[in-house]
Amino acid sequence: MTTPLPRLLDERRDAHLEQLFEFLRIPSVSTDPAHAGDVRRAATFLRDDLADHGFEARLLETDGHPAVLAKRTVDADAPTVLIYGHYDVQPPEPLEGWDTDPFEPTVRDGAVYARGASDDKGQVFAHVKGVQALFDAEPDTPVNVTFLIEGEEEVGSLHLADALEAHRDELAADVVVVSDGAMLAGPTPTLTYGLKGMAYLEVRVRSAARDLHSGAYGGGVPNAAMALATLLAGLKDADGRITVPGFYDDVREISDAERARFAEVPFDADAFADGIGVKATPGEPGRDLLERLWARPTLDVNGIGGGFQGDGSKTVIPAEAMAKVSSRLVPDQDPERIADLMEAHLRALAPDDVEVDVIRHATAPWALADLEGDAVGAAAEAIRRVDGRDPVFVRTGGTIPVVAAFQSLLGADVVLLDMGLEDDRVHAPNEKFEVDLFHRGVHVSAELLRALARG
Amino acid sequence: MTTPLPRLLDERRDAHLEQLFEFLRIPSVSTDPAHAGDVRRAATFLRDDLADHGFEARLLETDGHPAVLAKRTVDADAPTVLIYGHYDVQPPEPLEGWDTDPFEPTVRDGAVYARGASDDKGQVFAHVKGVQALFDAEPDTPVNVTFLIEGEEEVGSLHLADALEAHRDELAADVVVVSDGAMLAGPTPTLTYGLKGMAYLEVRVRSAARDLHSGAYGGGVPNAAMALATLLAGLKDADGRITVPGFYDDVREISDAERARFAEVPFDADAFADGIGVKATPGEPGRDLLERLWARPTLDVNGIGGGFQGDGSKTVIPAEAMAKVSSRLVPDQDPERIADLMEAHLRALAPDDVEVDVIRHATAPWALADLEGDAVGAAAEAIRRVDGRDPVFVRTGGTIPVVAAFQSLLGADVVLLDMGLEDDRVHAPNEKFEVDLFHRGVHVSAELLRALARG
Repeated sequence: MTTPLPRLLDERRDAHLEQLFEFLRIPSVSTDPAHAGDVRRAATFLRDDLADHGFEARLLETDGHPAVLAKRTVDADAPTVLIYGHYDVQPPEPLEGWDTDPFEPTVRDGAVYARGASDDKGQVFAHVKGVQALFDAEPDTPVNVTFLIEGEEEVGSLHLADALEAHRDELAADVVVVSDGAMLAGPTPTLTYGLKGMAYLEVRVRSAARDLHSGAYGGGVPNAAMALATLLAGLKDADGRITVPGFYDDVREISDAERARFAEVPFDADAFADGIGVKATPGEPGRDLLERLWARPTLDVNGIGGGFQGDGSKTVIPAEAMAKVSSRLVPDQDPERIADLMEAHLRALAPDDVEVDVIRHATAPWALADLEGDAVGAAAEAIRRVDGRDPVFVRTGGTIPVVAAFQSLLGADVVLLDMGLEDDRVHAPNEKFEVDLFHRGVHVSAELLRALARG
Repeated sequence: MTTPLPRLLDERRDAHLEQLFEFLRIPSVSTDPAHAGDVRRAATFLRDDLADHGFEARLLETDGHPAVLAKRTVDADAPTVLIYGHYDVQPPEPLEGWDTDPFEPTVRDGAVYARGASDDKGQVFAHVKGVQALFDAEPDTPVNVTFLIEGEEEVGSLHLADALEAHRDELAADVVVVSDGAMLAGPTPTLTYGLKGMAYLEVRVRSAARDLHSGAYGGGVPNAAMALATLLAGLKDADGRITVPGFYDDVREISDAERARFAEVPFDADAFADGIGVKATPGEPGRDLLERLWARPTLDVNGIGGGFQGDGSKTVIPAEAMAKVSSRLVPDQDPERIADLMEAHLRALAPDDVEVDVIRHATAPWALADLEGDAVGAAAEAIRRVDGRDPVFVRTGGTIPVVAAFQSLLGADVVLLDMGLEDDRVHAPNEKFEVDLFHRGVHVSAELLRALARG
C-alpha cells in the first residue's frame, strides 16, 4: 500500500531539506581544479540517490567533470521526459561577502543560504525529490524519466555537446525540462518556451600602417575610426530596421494566438524603462516592445574602440578600429547564414580605402517549444495543480546553447520551468533559495510527471 | 675697421661650435624639478652672451622657468625682427639608448650628438651667433633685433602667453622668425609660412543607467555605441565633405599664385601614401591633396570607445560611448565659432533617446604669413644668399599656438625657418644636429638681418 502523493510530500519535507543540505555541503566548484574531488563527490551523491530510488544511474565520464545520467523506464511507449540541470557551482568568493559559510547551508527568514542553493543544486534537486516521491506514491505512472545533470555548466558546458551526440539514443525524449533560472517577480509561476539564437562578430578596420598625426596627415588619409562609424551606422536604417540584406527572410511571424498571450503578460513598459534608466524603448518599427524583445531578431554593437581613449586630447588619426557586433536570432533564422549575411554586409559597407577583417566569435541556435505541445502543456498543468493559477508564458531574448542543442539533437520541445527568484543572488555572496519555493518545486516536478502521463 | 661678414663667420666656426657645446652641456630639462637650477643656468648663459654683444638682456621671471628677453635697437624706424626659440630640453631618458653622454656633446660623422642639439638649443643658438656676427661685421645695419627664448616649451609653454601679454610693447616686431623644426628631406631649404588652427572636442553618449544584457534588452533600448556611430557618420557626407553647418563659411580660398607655388613643391603623392601604408588619399572633393593637407579645414575622429573591447565576446549593450573629434582650421575660421558649430551639430545629430555631453579640450588659432610680406621675403632672400637656391615654401596642417599668438598679439608675420632635419631624433636618444647645418644656420640668420635691413 503506497502513501498518496500529497501526504508523502508532506511527510518528507524535513527529509528533503536535510538531503538538500547534504548536497549543498559538497563544494562542487567546477572552476577550481582543487575541488575536482568534491565535484565528483557531488556527482556520486546524485547517482547513488537516484540509484537508490530505482534509477539506472551512472556517471558519464568526460575529459572534464562527469555528468550524471539516470534513467527510469516504465514503458517504451510512454512519454519520456528528460530533466536537465547541473550540480556544479560558482566559486564562493568573495568570502567576506557571506553572512554564513557558503558550504554550510543555513536557513534565515525562510530561505536556505548556500552556494548553489538556487543555481542550480536546489532546483535540480527539487526535481530529483519530486520524481522520486511521485514514483514512490504512484509507481506505475506511465512516464519515463531521464536525468542528465552535468558538472561543467559554470565552466561553459565544455563537454556537454559531445555527450549529447555520443548518448543521443539513451537521451531520446519527447519533452525536456530545465529548471535553472528565476521566475517573474511576485513570485509569478513562469514557463519560458522560447530563446533567441545568436551570431556574434567582430569587425576590424585598418586604414594605415600606423597611427598618423592629424596635423601632418589630416585631409589626405582614410581614418579607421571614421570608416568604422560609417560602417556601423549603415547596419540599421533611420527607423531602426536592420539593413543586412536577407536578414529578415526567414523570420517566422508570431501567430495571433501568441500575440494575444504576449498581451496578457504582466509587463509594464514604463517600469522596464525606468528600471534601467532609458529615455525610450526604440526598436524595429511596427512591433510592440515585447514582440521585439522576445520574437524579433535584433542587432547591437557590443563594443567599439580605436585611437586615443585617454583623458584630454591627442591629435592622432587612428590606423585601426574595431567593433563587436551581434544579432539575437529567432525562428527560423539560421545562425550561420545570418553570420554570412552580416559579414558580407559589413564588407560591402566598408569604404574602398580601408581593409576590413571580420572575426566570427560565436553562433548559437534559437529554441522554441510548441505552445500547444506536451512540454508546455504538462508544465502548465503542473503549475495549475500546485499554484492554483495559470503560469505566465514567456519567451526571452537570451540564448542558452544547450537548450537549443536538446531541441535540435533530440527533436524534443524544451520548456524552462524556473523555480528561483531574481533576487536569489546567483553567482554572488549570500546566494539563497526560498524554502517554500524548494518544496513547491518538488511538488511541481511530481505533478509534471502526472500531467505527462495523462498526455 | 671691421672684418667682413664671410671672413668673420669663417674665423669663428670653431668658437661658435665650442660655445654651442658649452650651452649643450647645461642639462636644462624643464620637466624635471631637480634640474630647475640647470634650466636657470642655461637662461643666464644666454642672457650673458647676448649682453656681452650689445644687447639689453634680462630674464623674464614667471611662475615657472624664466624666459630670456634681449633687445638691440639700432633705430626706432628700422624694421624689428623677433627671434623666438627655447633653451629647455626634453629629458634624455632612456639613457641606455644613447651612444654618448647626452650632456657631453660629441661630433660623429659630421653631426653634434647631444640632447637639445636640434631641439632647440642648436637652432636658437645659430641665430644668437649669426646676429652677433652680423652686428660685429656691420654694426650699423638698420634692423632691430629682439630675442625671446623661453624655458618651458617642452612643458607646454605654460607661462608664455602671459609673458606676451605683459610685455607686448617690448616685444613689438614687424617680423617673427622661429627655428624649431626640420626642413624637407634633401636637405631642402624650407620656409613654412602657414599653420592650421584647431578645435578639439569630445562627445560622450549615454543611453542607459548601466550596461545592459543584449539578450534581456536587445530590441528594446537605445545603444550608446550605435548612437555614437550614427552621429560620427553624420559629420561628413558620402564625398568626404564636412557637414557641420557653417563650417566652410569663413574659409579663405587660396590665390592662383599660391596654388601655382603648391604645384612647384617637390611633393610625391605616391611616396606620401606608400610611406604610411594607405591605400588612397581621400578627402574633400575637388581639392588637390596638398591643398587639403595645407589649406583646407579637416575633421577627424581621433579616438572612439565604448562597451566591451576585450578579446572574444561579451553580450552587452553599452550604456556609454565616447569619441574625440577634432578639426584643423584655416584662415579665416574662428576656432571658438567652429567649436560652437561642431558642438551644435553633434547635438543635432544625436538621436533623441540618448544623452549627449560635449567637452571642449582645446582650441587654437591658425597662422599665415603674407607670401609677399617682409618676413617671407627676407627669409627667402637669406636662403638664396647662403644656399644659392630658392627655398621651398610650405604650409602645414600642424598647429603651434605660440606662432598664432605672435601673429595675433604682435600683428607680425611669422615665418618658420627650420634648420634641422627629420632624422635629428628630437625627443629621442642620440639627438643630433648636422655641424654644417649649424654653421649654415648662423649664416642664414646673419643674412636674414641684412635682407630685412635692405627692406
